[in-house]
Amino acid sequence: MRVRVLTTLAYRFHEPTEIIAKFQVAHALGQTLVSEQLTLNPATRLIETTDPTDGSRTLRGKTAHELRIEYAAVVDIVPRIAIPANAPQTRWSDLPADALRYLLPSRYCPSDKFGRFVARAFPAPMSGGARVAAILDWIHRNIDYQFGVSTHETTAEETFVDRAGVCRDFAHLAITLCRAANIPARAVAVYAEGLVPQDFHAVIEVFVAGSWWLVDPTRLAPINGLVRIAAGRDAADIAFLTTNIGAELVWLSVDVATVVPAIAA
Amino acid sequence: MRVRVLTTLAYRFHEPTEIIAKFQVAHALGQTLVSEQLTLNPATRLIETTDPTDGSRTLRGKTAHELRIEYAAVVDIVPRIAIPANAPQTRWSDLPADALRYLLPSRYCPSDKFGRFVARAFPAPMSGGARVAAILDWIHRNIDYQFGVSTHETTAEETFVDRAGVCRDFAHLAITLCRAANIPARAVAVYAEGLVPQDFHAVIEVFVAGSWWLVDPTRLAPINGLVRIAAGRDAADIAFLTTNIGAELVWLSVDVATVVPAIAA
Amino acid sequence: MRVRVLTTLAYRFHEPTEIIAKFQVAHALGQTLVSEQLTLNPATRLIETTDPTDGSRTLRGKTAHELRIEYAAVVDIVPRIAIPANAPQTRWSDLPADALRYLLPSRYCPSDKFGRFVARAFPAPMSGGARVAAILDWIHRNIDYQFGVSTHETTAEETFVDRAGVCRDFAHLAITLCRAANIPARAVAVYAEGLVPQDFHAVIEVFVAGSWWLVDPTRLAPINGLVRIAAGRDAADIAFLTTNIGAELVWLSVDVATVVPAIAA
Amino acid sequence: MRVRVLTTLAYRFHEPTEIIAKFQVAHALGQTLVSEQLTLNPATRLIETTDPTDGSRTLRGKTAHELRIEYAAVVDIVPRIAIPANAPQTRWSDLPADALRYLLPSRYCPSDKFGRFVARAFPAPMSGGARVAAILDWIHRNIDYQFGVSTHETTAEETFVDRAGVCRDFAHLAITLCRAANIPARAVAVYAEGLVPQDFHAVIEVFVAGSWWLVDPTRLAPINGLVRIAAGRDAADIAFLTTNIGAELVWLSVDVATVVPAIAA
Repeated sequence: MRVRVLTTLAYRFHEPTEIIAKFQVAHALGQTLVSEQLTLNPATRLIETTDPTDGSRTLRGKTAHELRIEYAAVVDIVPRIAIPANAPQTRWSDLPADALRYLLPSRYCPSDKFGRFVARAFPAPMSGGARVAAILDWIHRNIDYQFGVSTHETTAEETFVDRAGVCRDFAHLAITLCRAANIPARAVAVYAEGLVPQDFHAVIEVFVAGSWWLVDPTRLAPINGLVRIAAGRDAADIAFLTTNIGAELVWLSVDVATVVPAIAA
Repeated sequence: MRVRVLTTLAYRFHEPTEIIAKFQVAHALGQTLVSEQLTLNPATRLIETTDPTDGSRTLRGKTAHELRIEYAAVVDIVPRIAIPANAPQTRWSDLPADALRYLLPSRYCPSDKFGRFVARAFPAPMSGGARVAAILDWIHRNIDYQFGVSTHETTAEETFVDRAGVCRDFAHLAITLCRAANIPARAVAVYAEGLVPQDFHAVIEVFVAGSWWLVDPTRLAPINGLVRIAAGRDAADIAFLTTNIGAELVWLSVDVATVVPAIAA
Repeated sequence: MRVRVLTTLAYRFHEPTEIIAKFQVAHALGQTLVSEQLTLNPATRLIETTDPTDGSRTLRGKTAHELRIEYAAVVDIVPRIAIPANAPQTRWSDLPADALRYLLPSRYCPSDKFGRFVARAFPAPMSGGARVAAILDWIHRNIDYQFGVSTHETTAEETFVDRAGVCRDFAHLAITLCRAANIPARAVAVYAEGLVPQDFHAVIEVFVAGSWWLVDPTRLAPINGLVRIAAGRDAADIAFLTTNIGAELVWLSVDVATVVPAIAA
Repeated sequence: MRVRVLTTLAYRFHEPTEIIAKFQVAHALGQTLVSEQLTLNPATRLIETTDPTDGSRTLRGKTAHELRIEYAAVVDIVPRIAIPANAPQTRWSDLPADALRYLLPSRYCPSDKFGRFVARAFPAPMSGGARVAAILDWIHRNIDYQFGVSTHETTAEETFVDRAGVCRDFAHLAITLCRAANIPARAVAVYAEGLVPQDFHAVIEVFVAGSWWLVDPTRLAPINGLVRIAAGRDAADIAFLTTNIGAELVWLSVDVATVVPAIAA
C-alpha cells in the first residue's frame, strides 16, 4: 500500500533553544520511503542521524523563537499480518542483543511491579502469541479510551489503577504487561492511515517468534496503514519534539491518506 | 594502575530459569583487560555479547536450580582526572547519537519532573563542569548515606524527598539532576578498589566537553580505582543478574585489590 | 471587620446523586455569622450538621440532574494577629485530643516522608512560632504560584519535587512540613476578602502556644479578611462538593467585600 | 465470649521523646472491659483520653530512653454476625456525621483513584452487603498474603498493582474499594483470638444498614474473637506507637486466649 503523509508542526519558544525532533518516516523493515520533503520556517540548520537498530531518524539543532515544520512523505508499506496465535516466546539467549533493553522497566513502564498480576492473569504455559493476545484482550475489556484523565506524566501503573487513558497510556500498559511476561516490547510512534481524528499515534511492537510485530493496543487504526516514525522504550524516547526549555505547540496537523497508484500505460 | 578483581555470586532458583548477567569487566576506553577466568558451577552454557556503544558485556543462558559464579580478572586502568570546572556543556547537536538516550527520563530517574528545581538551584550560566560539580555538592550536603531506607523500587524522586539512600540512590539522583540540566548522564556498575566494605558499586558518567566522565556521587571510592562493568540508563539496565522468575542470592563476595607489578629483572 | 460573602455554584450531574456540600460560613471562634441566605434551584432537601470540634457545617442530600446554589452571608471577623515568633511548640500531652489527628499523614500530606528534610532544613531548637515562620519562608522562596502544573490528585510530595502549584498545593506542602516538625496542621477552606481574582481559597491552621492560628502559605490574601468555611486533614476533607458520581461544575463565582457599617444616628 | 489479652512492648529511643500509644482495649459497643492492668517500666506519667466517636483510647506522655509496656486485660465480647447479604447501603444523608470522614481518601487509601475499577468490577445495583462481600471475595482471589513485599509506606494503590501484602495492606485495599463504592470504611486495630502466629492485627469496619460491621479481609482470624483497640482512617491513625523521633522496637509479644469461666458453685 502506498501512503502519503502530510504534517505541520508549529512551535513558539521562550528563547532560542536546542531541539531533538522525531517526525520523519523511519528507514525500517517493511516500509520504503518513496519521497519526502521538509520545510523549516525560519530556515534552520538541523543534523540528521539514523538509529542503526530500528531505523528511527532524529533531527537536532538550534531554533530561533519560532519554528514551523512542514513535512510531506510518500511511503510504500508491505502488508502486515497479525501475530500468529502459536508464535513461540523467544528465549532470551536467542534475542538480538539490542532487544534486551526492551525487557526492562522504563520511565512510564514499571514492568518490575507487575510480575504477580501477569502470572495470575496470563499464566504459562501459553505461546508468546497467545500471551500477547490475552494481554491485549484484557486491556480492551478493562481500559476506557478517554481524553482528559491522563497527563504527560502518567505511568502504566497509574493507568492500571485508573482504567482509562489515550493511545500513549494504552501503549504503556501493553508494553508493561508484556515485559512483565518476559516478552520484549517497545513503543512506536506512527502515522496512522484511517485513524479518526487524524493525529500522531502511539502503538507498540512485541518480539515473539524471532521478530518484532506491530500491534495497536487501542484497536483504533488498521495495522496495515501504520507508517513507522520512531521506536523506543516508552513515550520519553519517541516524543516528536524534545527541547531544553518549555515549548508551546501552536499548531499541529496530521493528514495521512492512501495513494491510488497511476495505472502504468 | 593494575587491579585484580575476584567475585563470587551464588544463586538459588525456584525452577530452572533464563538469566541475563553483567559482572564481567567491560572492554571500555581507559581500561584494558589483562586476563580473566570464569567458573560456573554447575557448568552452564552462556552466550556473551558486547554492547558496541559502551563495551558492556552480557551473558545469557538457562540455569539449573542453582548457579555459583566465580570470576577473576586483572585489569589495567588509565589514571582518570576529575572533570575540569570549565568543561563546557556539549551542545545537543554535537552529542554522539547514542548519548541522546541519556538525556531522557528512565525508570528510576524521572528527570522530567525536576526542571524547576534545577533551574533555581543550579542556574545557568555555568559551565557544564561547574554545573555537575554544583549538583554533586548539593547531593553531598543534603543526602545521607544510609542503609535500610530504600528498596530496589526506590526512584530518584523518592530519594529527593527522603534525603537518604545508598550508592544506587545517590547515582539515580545525580543522573536525574544532570539530565534535568540537559547534561547526558548514565549509571555505571563498577568494581571499586578502596571501597569499604567491598561490594558492587554504582557510580555515574556524565557527558561534558565532548567526553564521558566517571564520577562517584557517594564520594566513597577513589575514581582511579573504578573498574567498569556495565553502563545504562539506570539500575534497571546494569543489574548483575536479571531473571524471569525470582532468584535468591545466597552468597556475594567482592574483592578488589591493586596488584604490585613484579620488578622486571 | 464586617464582610459580605456572595457565592454561586452551579452543577450538572449525569444522574440524580447524593452530595456532601461545604460552603457555608462556619460557626467558629473568631467569627460571628450575622445573617445568611441560601437558595437552591431546584428546591432540594438538605440536612445540615455542624462539626463540634471546629464548627464546620455540612449539607447532605440528594439532587436532581442539576443544582444551582446561591449563598449570601454577612460575617463579623475579630482581628487576627500573626503567630508570635516565640510561640512555643505545644507538647503532645497538652494538645486537645481532637488535634492529634492533625499530626498524622493524610491523602495529600504524606508527612511521614519528610522527617529528614525537616530536621535538616528547620532544625531544633527553635520555638514553634519560629519554626512555622521558617517553613513558610522556605515555601515562599522555593515554590512558584502557577496554574496548570497540578491536578486534584497532586500530593505535597509531588509539589515538593515540582516546585510549583496553586493555593491547595501550597497548603498541602505547608501542612506536610509542619506535621513532619511535630506541629499539628490542618487545611482550612475560606472566603478571602482581598484575594485577586476572587475564588474559594485554601489556607492552613497550625497549633502552637495552645491555639490554632490561621496562616496563608500563598501570601495572597490578608489574614484579617479570611472567613472560615471548613477545616480538615487536607483538601479531601474540605471540598465544597463531594458526589458519588462525577459532577460538572458549570458556574462558580465568589464575591467577598467589606461592609461599611452605617453610622449609628 | 471472655478473652484474656497479654501484650508486652519494649522500645528504645535515641533520646527522651513524646509518645502517643494505642494498645488498650477500647470502650466500644459489643465489648466490655472486665479488668485490665498496665505496667510501665520505667514508671512514666501518661495521660489517657477516649475518642467519643469510637471508644478508642490514647495514652500520651514523655518517655525516658527506654520504655517497657506490659498490658493485661480481660474482655467480654458479644457474638458478632456476618454482614447480611441484603444489608442496604446507607444513604449519605442518613449517615452519622462522624462517619462522613470514612468516605474520603486518606494517606494509604486513595479511594478517589478507584472509581472506574469499582464501577466495572462491582457494578450497581447491588445491596451494600453484597457489594462488600464481592469486594472481599475479589481481594481473597487476587491478593497473596505474603511478608516482605510491602513496607510501612505501602499504599492500597501499590498493593492493587503488586497483588500481595500483609494484614495492613489487605485492610487498606478493602477500605479503598469500599470508599470508592461510596461505603464508609475504616481501619481497626485489634487483638485477635485464634490468629496464628499471634500479633497485633488490622481489620476493617464498614458502614451498611445503619451500623458499623467488623470484617477481616485476610480471613485469618475468627470475627468473634476480635478485641477492638482503635479505629481510624487507615494505619496512620491506629499505630500502637507514634513518636516524634525514631524508635526501636526491641520486643513485641501478644498473647490472646479465651477464658474458660469457672463453674458457679
